[in-house]
Amino acid sequence: MAEFRHQIPPGDTQERLVCAQCGFIDYQNPRIIVGSVVAAPDRRVLLCRRAIEPRRGFWTLPAGFLELGETLAEGAAREALEEAQARIVAEGILAVFSISRIGQVQVIFRAGFAEPDAPRFAAGPESAEVGLFAWDEVPFEELAFPSVRWALYAWRANPIGPLTAPAGNPPEDPRGEARIADLNAGAL
Amino acid sequence: MAEFRHQIPPGDTQERLVCAQCGFIDYQNPRIIVGSVVAAPDRRVLLCRRAIEPRRGFWTLPAGFLELGETLAEGAAREALEEAQARIVAEGILAVFSISRIGQVQVIFRAGFAEPDAPRFAAGPESAEVGLFAWDEVPFEELAFPSVRWALYAWRANPIGPLTAPAGNPPEDPRGEARIADLNAGAL
Repeated sequence: MAEFRHQIPPGDTQERLVCAQCGFIDYQNPRIIVGSVVAAPDRRVLLCRRAIEPRRGFWTLPAGFLELGETLAEGAAREALEEAQARIVAEGILAVFSISRIGQVQVIFRAGFAEPDAPRFAAGPESAEVGLFAWDEVPFEELAFPSVRWALYAWRANPIGPLTAPAGNPPEDPRGEARIADLNAGAL
Repeated sequence: MAEFRHQIPPGDTQERLVCAQCGFIDYQNPRIIVGSVVAAPDRRVLLCRRAIEPRRGFWTLPAGFLELGETLAEGAAREALEEAQARIVAEGILAVFSISRIGQVQVIFRAGFAEPDAPRFAAGPESAEVGLFAWDEVPFEELAFPSVRWALYAWRANPIGPLTAPAGNPPEDPRGEARIADLNAGAL
């Protein structure tokens, strides 16, 4: 298997992972998570209970890694289909979060169901359960990640009508450094 | 040197680059470009003439790859410092573009100079020249990339005051597939 060492490659200014066997430089770039807050016309929002680690059993939005070759809106639609078997229509960008601790940028859309009068959804392979939740039914104590809560509050502030400037990280966590343990300890 | 082959790893659904020597899987993810439209109080905008390929000699915004461990706003500030030796204050997100052809997401901030009454800037190592341009002085025929023009027009539509929903790709290029050759041929 590959054995990587931290080195500054010639001409570079940052340490990179370089394979000691073959010289391959593994440029580790931040990764893009794309997802959406999908709401039905009655303003219930779609949440998925995770069937996989990390945070198995906790609730999240349909979201995941953007794949090479797709646009943000395409990625959000694919994730909703994969995780919640839901066809959605992305309305625009609701929030953009930086989670610098783990090298992530999250782009969250506001979305509706493609057939809003008959929202269809079901658990995909990565979800144990999928459901629509009114605001006072959202399992805030059982959310998988702090940014799920941030996204839901961004949606709550602007659930319909023209989208405004996207929400960013909250003032108490501007660099996205909080850990789930902190969240669970009530620090956030 | 590493010799990579296209293979679908066990449990995956997509082809990835796998090193034939050591088994390392090179997940190629989309990359994040972060940059800004930096304007002086007289509404001239900061542009950099590229000293490096691609598109050496053409004009661009201070922008580049987000690095691991930094937030989007931090990345935009670093790029302005590196490419234009300018200290900026990011006001918020002006535009988010998907350039699916090359696996990029671009997040462009609206920004001002940290010392707006005495904007300071100079060419960094990757720039041949840096300058402030009034709208009718912008070298639109010599811009490095289509998204530079998109970002400038997004700024033009919302140069001051509260930021609105970020601009996205223009209707004529929703997936960001246009090539610079098409731009130069006047197709866009």
